[in-house]
Amino acid sequence: MEISEIIKSLRPNRVGQEMYQLVSELYPICRSITGNGFRTTLDIIREHIDVKIHEIPTGTNVFDWTVPKEWNIKDAYIKNLHGERIIDFKISNLHVLNYSVPIKRKISLNELKKHFYTLPDYPDWIPYRTSYYQEKWGFCLSQNKFLSLKEEEYEVCIDSSLEDGHLTYGEYYLKGENPDEILISCHACHPSLCNDNLSGVALTTFLAKYLSNISTRYSYRFLFIPGTIGSVSWLCLNEKNVSRIKHGLVVACVGDGGKFTYKKSRRGNAEIDQAVLHVLKHYCKNHEVIDFFPYGYDERQYCSPGFNLPVGCLMRTPHDRFPEYHTSADDLNFVKPDYLGESFDTYLIVLGVLENNAMYINQNARCEPQLGKRGLYPSMPNKEESMMNQLAMLWVLNLSDGEYTLLDIADRSNLPFNVINNAAHALLRTGLLKNSV
Amino acid sequence: MEISEIIKSLRPNRVGQEMYQLVSELYPICRSITGNGFRTTLDIIREHIDVKIHEIPTGTNVFDWTVPKEWNIKDAYIKNLHGERIIDFKISNLHVLNYSVPIKRKISLNELKKHFYTLPDYPDWIPYRTSYYQEKWGFCLSQNKFLSLKEEEYEVCIDSSLEDGHLTYGEYYLKGENPDEILISCHACHPSLCNDNLSGVALTTFLAKYLSNISTRYSYRFLFIPGTIGSVSWLCLNEKNVSRIKHGLVVACVGDGGKFTYKKSRRGNAEIDQAVLHVLKHYCKNHEVIDFFPYGYDERQYCSPGFNLPVGCLMRTPHDRFPEYHTSADDLNFVKPDYLGESFDTYLIVLGVLENNAMYINQNARCEPQLGKRGLYPSMPNKEESMMNQLAMLWVLNLSDGEYTLLDIADRSNLPFNVINNAAHALLRTGLLKNSV
Amino acid sequence: MEISEIIKSLRPNRVGQEMYQLVSELYPICRSITGNGFRTTLDIIREHIDVKIHEIPTGTNVFDWTVPKEWNIKDAYIKNLHGERIIDFKISNLHVLNYSVPIKRKISLNELKKHFYTLPDYPDWIPYRTSYYQEKWGFCLSQNKFLSLKEEEYEVCIDSSLEDGHLTYGEYYLKGENPDEILISCHACHPSLCNDNLSGVALTTFLAKYLSNISTRYSYRFLFIPGTIGSVSWLCLNEKNVSRIKHGLVVACVGDGGKFTYKKSRRGNAEIDQAVLHVLKHYCKNHEVIDFFPYGYDERQYCSPGFNLPVGCLMRTPHDRFPEYHTSADDLNFVKPDYLGESFDTYLIVLGVLENNAMYINQNARCEPQLGKRGLYPSMPNKEESMMNQLAMLWVLNLSDGEYTLLDIADRSNLPFNVINNAAHALLRTGLLKNSV
Repeated sequence: MEISEIIKSLRPNRVGQEMYQLVSELYPICRSITGNGFRTTLDIIREHIDVKIHEIPTGTNVFDWTVPKEWNIKDAYIKNLHGERIIDFKISNLHVLNYSVPIKRKISLNELKKHFYTLPDYPDWIPYRTSYYQEKWGFCLSQNKFLSLKEEEYEVCIDSSLEDGHLTYGEYYLKGENPDEILISCHACHPSLCNDNLSGVALTTFLAKYLSNISTRYSYRFLFIPGTIGSVSWLCLNEKNVSRIKHGLVVACVGDGGKFTYKKSRRGNAEIDQAVLHVLKHYCKNHEVIDFFPYGYDERQYCSPGFNLPVGCLMRTPHDRFPEYHTSADDLNFVKPDYLGESFDTYLIVLGVLENNAMYINQNARCEPQLGKRGLYPSMPNKEESMMNQLAMLWVLNLSDGEYTLLDIADRSNLPFNVINNAAHALLRTGLLKNSV
Repeated sequence: MEISEIIKSLRPNRVGQEMYQLVSELYPICRSITGNGFRTTLDIIREHIDVKIHEIPTGTNVFDWTVPKEWNIKDAYIKNLHGERIIDFKISNLHVLNYSVPIKRKISLNELKKHFYTLPDYPDWIPYRTSYYQEKWGFCLSQNKFLSLKEEEYEVCIDSSLEDGHLTYGEYYLKGENPDEILISCHACHPSLCNDNLSGVALTTFLAKYLSNISTRYSYRFLFIPGTIGSVSWLCLNEKNVSRIKHGLVVACVGDGGKFTYKKSRRGNAEIDQAVLHVLKHYCKNHEVIDFFPYGYDERQYCSPGFNLPVGCLMRTPHDRFPEYHTSADDLNFVKPDYLGESFDTYLIVLGVLENNAMYINQNARCEPQLGKRGLYPSMPNKEESMMNQLAMLWVLNLSDGEYTLLDIADRSNLPFNVINNAAHALLRTGLLKNSV
Repeated sequence: MEISEIIKSLRPNRVGQEMYQLVSELYPICRSITGNGFRTTLDIIREHIDVKIHEIPTGTNVFDWTVPKEWNIKDAYIKNLHGERIIDFKISNLHVLNYSVPIKRKISLNELKKHFYTLPDYPDWIPYRTSYYQEKWGFCLSQNKFLSLKEEEYEVCIDSSLEDGHLTYGEYYLKGENPDEILISCHACHPSLCNDNLSGVALTTFLAKYLSNISTRYSYRFLFIPGTIGSVSWLCLNEKNVSRIKHGLVVACVGDGGKFTYKKSRRGNAEIDQAVLHVLKHYCKNHEVIDFFPYGYDERQYCSPGFNLPVGCLMRTPHDRFPEYHTSADDLNFVKPDYLGESFDTYLIVLGVLENNAMYINQNARCEPQLGKRGLYPSMPNKEESMMNQLAMLWVLNLSDGEYTLLDIADRSNLPFNVINNAAHALLRTGLLKNSV
């Protein structure tokens, strides 16, 4: 079990620290669904893994959608009569309504207010707002800042461009023994937001980095894409190959301290659903499982009825359950190395289950075989662990009739997958079990 | 949604008042499973809808049963030595054991007692008793009246007739776009009893009356029949056409103040079951669902194994859970206009679900379509209702793959049917959704 | 219902007393998986039923196993320096590690300790230990006795033999109307242990004895075998005939005062599972049902995937839930005649359900038949029992459509099997119901 080797070799918190470091590095960049912020992000990821960069021209039709104009921004501010920048993009890139068209003019407070977005319930936080498909401009600011503004003339400036260009995304493919693929997808289109965006980018990057060092049964495809338009584009360009995707996870919100939350694939009973449920039950204290619903992240596209891919979404706190979501409070204090590391481990255990899950056939199906004469009978029959291992062998023998995978056996016996897997391998060595087919 | 127009147009309590008025008019009549009381009842119903009257001769074999002799009654009493009517049919028609053979003679109290029916637990109430298939005579009276009787000679008189004649029932058919039928059936064979009988008669009458004003997808068949022998007769005479019945409800006990109670069809998972469960869950505060059992009203016959029709029974309080059942206490005070009106509304909402339930096909099944460019994206995305409508569209799109009806989608999304139905119609208008062929 | 005749004819506690008497008689014998103790046991059982004795030679291959050498023992002891027997096989045969090789020599306490087995948590109890497949010797003793031993030289003697011989088992076959079989299997290989062994032996013996007096629909096969190697041997020798086994129960731990516990067959939804669950629910106050797991008694072999027979295990307290299990405390005080008798009754009721369970076809499937004209309408319609019997008839009529057995009908109606069975027989007599072909 190659992945289990990684798990064992990890120094506690080491990966969490590495992930946090990457989040910190990516944090200041102003990203959007297109533009140089996204490209810079991929360049930094390329310091860890050899991501291939794809560029799709503005105007390309992707199913029902069209790739939009490319947006870039250099600066933005609101100055008061004294020429002081009272709102400054350089202090927080959240201040600009993402995808704002360029503007530079004098404006009264009254008129300016129509372009403001605030969060009255959280008066110190700056909201994050976008307007990708409707051309307008605006500023996001804290309610307190808003209330402090005097009636006077202001100078507003958004030094942005919205022009024909490209949509950019990154793809990293790891070839395994088998052409069957596991898809790991994250959106990387948000500016300075840590949990909803960068935590997923970091987890995906390090998963790719660590898996690239070992041999795997499955091939892996890692996607760093802008939300919605990115997955729509990728699915459109790769439509003929999606049948290779046997399992998939959308990575988002994995850096906060909440319990794990798994949103099932649309199928609801795919192997990925079974694997994540098993791992959460046996390896994570507190967790919640929710049924698929057609809202959220890119699983919406992967699970659209024309694809219906077995892709779930494994998060910690879902986006609609933490108030910091899409605000300036989703910052470098909100995510922690320990949480990131724990999320990484959980993803790795899930992939370990998928890598090792298989169906075997009991070669001695009439009555139990005599374990003792093969040295499989526990030498310390009273030790709890020995008993569990013996019981695991009996379960594997009893259910390896061509109907049950190891994961099915783990679920029916209520034993952790690794115990069942170890028992199966002990039996394989004696020839009592053989591969199915 | 034509039925929803009715629902909107109803003035609160208006229909309830109309129904109560009809109950009051029918209350004094002495009905039985045959005879002129049943005919008079149908005549009064004909003031509202053009019910067709059927007459089946005594002796006709209907499956395992035979149409009995026709019973009619003019008067009945018990007189004491002073010639005073101490029990008088003209005061309450419940006093006579329904289907009593004629009798007129002097009799001692001791012998008379063998022909008495009382309710010791409710000493002021007169019970309702029948003897359709065993020829005898008897009187029902309150326990208190019974205890007040002195040892003396009495004169008993039942001026009834039991002769060859007919069994009468009423049928009202509303032609819809489609020959597929919805059956609404009530028993109308009880004398002065309001909840168990007349409430169902009134609801069925007004349902027919209101539906006759609109165009419907389904055809509707309304039956006013004597219990058991009536449904047996109708099924026997119409055996070749019952396959047209796609959904059905038996109406009974809909005038009391209890919560709604739905008894499922024998199939248990018919569309009528799904529709009523959905409506009770989303539109009625308190309710109970019980599995089919082979006792109760005419659903016993419709759900006999040789027919197994998708017919349930939607009541308020079931007959065995209110003590007034089959007693003089089930009177004009026990049922109320408000309760009748609320029951009417609930039936109408159920029919609205059936009328509108359909399967559609998402024409843009690969990824989500872009709702914004079609004006379907909520203009007020923060409003709860807008969000629900958008979510409803996403659900309809996601599940309209040829496997789910709108009602299935409403159930899986846990949204009310009308919200899902409205979303589907918005999508139909844009061509994103089409009828399943 | 012939079995119900037995049930009615049993004098309370009579069978329990008889069973307890047999347990007492068998208690002193030193049994093992082979040897004369097992033969003597069968001889005593033969005083009740004509068990056929089978002998399989040492060295016979039975699937993955080999019949071991035969073990016999005459005496065993540990003497102190004064020549006193401080551990004496004649006082308790549990003192000897079952299957100990012969030994006779002087030995120091220190060396002797390596051959001791005690139960520190229950310092007065002697444990029961075996070493069937690894040749060694040992003594089992109470922790208190162990602590009282002085440092001195001891004389140990185990006068046993381990030589080529036979494995012995008993089989009793009762021919019924039908070659389809019900298997009742118990292990009889434990020495002086009452609940885990002799209670099952006694119940199996008396079940066979009582059933031999009546005519049955099924044939019955009763097995008295050594655990594991016995069922493996029997299955190997009878492999071609196991398909005749339609239902089966492994009998163990039926003499203690705990609630009934049923361990389902591997199939989980076999008719035996349905029957036992029904009986426990309707006829036993307190009980527990557990899913199959591949550990326990001989159901492990019957339910191995190559056989997957519909065999469950009906116990009172399972072996791992009473501390007396496999200790000297599982003695004649631990089991009681009342508990044994109650277990016997429960087994008999289960067999009564299996004997009578069948599928019938309603001959009047369109609408209900008229029960009254056939004298099936309750004469006392207000009596609760009459109502239940009428309801049972309606259930049987409604569900006898070729999809439901009587047991299915009992489960769906939530009525006890005997009520449903009686209703079915009343309907059979009138011709309203016929056997399904």
